Amino acid sequence: MRRLEIIGLENIAEVRQGESVARLILNGCSRNDVALLPGDILVVAHKIVSKAEGRIVRLDAIRPSAHAIELARELNNKDARLVEIILSESRRIVRKGGGTIIVETHHGFICANAGVDLSNVGLGLVALLPRDPDRSAREIRVEIGRLGGVAPGVIISDSFGRPWRLGTVDVAIGVSGLKPLKDDRGRNDRYGYELRAAVAAAADELAAAAELVMGKRDGVPVVVIRGYGAEKGEGSVQELLRPEAEDLFRS
Amino acid sequence: MRRLEIIGLENIAEVRQGESVARLILNGCSRNDVALLPGDILVVAHKIVSKAEGRIVRLDAIRPSAHAIELARELNNKDARLVEIILSESRRIVRKGGGTIIVETHHGFICANAGVDLSNVGLGLVALLPRDPDRSAREIRVEIGRLGGVAPGVIISDSFGRPWRLGTVDVAIGVSGLKPLKDDRGRNDRYGYELRAAVAAAADELAAAAELVMGKRDGVPVVVIRGYGAEKGEGSVQELLRPEAEDLFRS
Repeated sequence: MRRLEIIGLENIAEVRQGESVARLILNGCSRNDVALLPGDILVVAHKIVSKAEGRIVRLDAIRPSAHAIELARELNNKDARLVEIILSESRRIVRKGGGTIIVETHHGFICANAGVDLSNVGLGLVALLPRDPDRSAREIRVEIGRLGGVAPGVIISDSFGRPWRLGTVDVAIGVSGLKPLKDDRGRNDRYGYELRAAVAAAADELAAAAELVMGKRDGVPVVVIRGYGAEKGEGSVQELLRPEAEDLFRS
Repeated sequence: MRRLEIIGLENIAEVRQGESVARLILNGCSRNDVALLPGDILVVAHKIVSKAEGRIVRLDAIRPSAHAIELARELNNKDARLVEIILSESRRIVRKGGGTIIVETHHGFICANAGVDLSNVGLGLVALLPRDPDRSAREIRVEIGRLGGVAPGVIISDSFGRPWRLGTVDVAIGVSGLKPLKDDRGRNDRYGYELRAAVAAAADELAAAAELVMGKRDGVPVVVIRGYGAEKGEGSVQELLRPEAEDLFRS
């Protein structure tokens, strides 16, 4: 029998700009009587990272450009200030329709609204994605190792919508300390058939598993996953991004 | 602290056509010393359901049509017999390129190869998706309730690829006994902001979580998820499928 534990840390303190997310997590661990073990993986909702890194914008400080105003009108009268922020976080627009805008962010993520989000930040405020979520993950991992003695794998997560299916699923937007893909290609199944397509997006599945205890309004921004034998490695979320040339749904 | 357990059942017996998957699962539970509890959710890899339902095809019994032969050539010389099977499992082709064909199955799933798969079935054999995976899930749930006294939620899962991101993530293809979407819209976050987009595809996240212990070649086709407070309801995978009119990436 194989067993995995998904442990949501409750009563994590509110994070302020400039504060250490690693310290916050370690305090949360002790408050929840969780001692990190080697091999543990931390899934951290990006919003606390965005807050710590000052990636929060006041909507009423934004002066939308003429282009943003026009695009906002086209998008069923979306807030033009929000559209201005989305455009500034994007490399390009992939698709738009109804009130929805799907973009490619500067990181290379293809998602709605460039990951810009008004929930769980405070009224009138907007959270942007961390500028370099791999680096954020690495800093958290290194500092937890330094302060706590055990350096867990770290995944920064966000909730992404999907084509064809309803509802969001959490995915990894930053990775440190584990290989995000589990590649079984070239190995045989138990009938001797050589696996050809067997690459699982483990980091995304770990993020999705963590969301089950995070919820959308429950104040559980940090989850410990225990018992998953992740392949070690520095890892990067870039390994999860499909190159444009191989993508059938980019343009 | 909130805790979820993901328990993979090992040493599940090989399933034969016509056998009861429910009995197989209950035997697996006792072999792994797991007594099902109310509120448990079973995630079942579709392949054992497909086998039990006889949805297995011998490749060398297939005579591809002229259309399948031509399409196979176009798809970097894919096996024309496989293409014939894929076409017969599909409503229509959504996109093709390289060796990849993305279709809409008769169920309404948009995925590569209509979910048709050569791994973990035996050499020269191909597994199709169950004809009605919601019904398969319901039958398993009802029979486990009858035989074992506790009727868990049941999710039938498969590994789907995604646009834009590499690696597969397991998703639900059949659901019974839980609501597949967790809808928090209209509720407030802790700052008083009314959540507008907060619908999580819980059944897909449960399937993804289960894959972490299933693996691709490890013979763990059944996973018990314990501690997730799913919203009760008959549920159907159809609730997870985005209507075509709202889809920006269908055609």
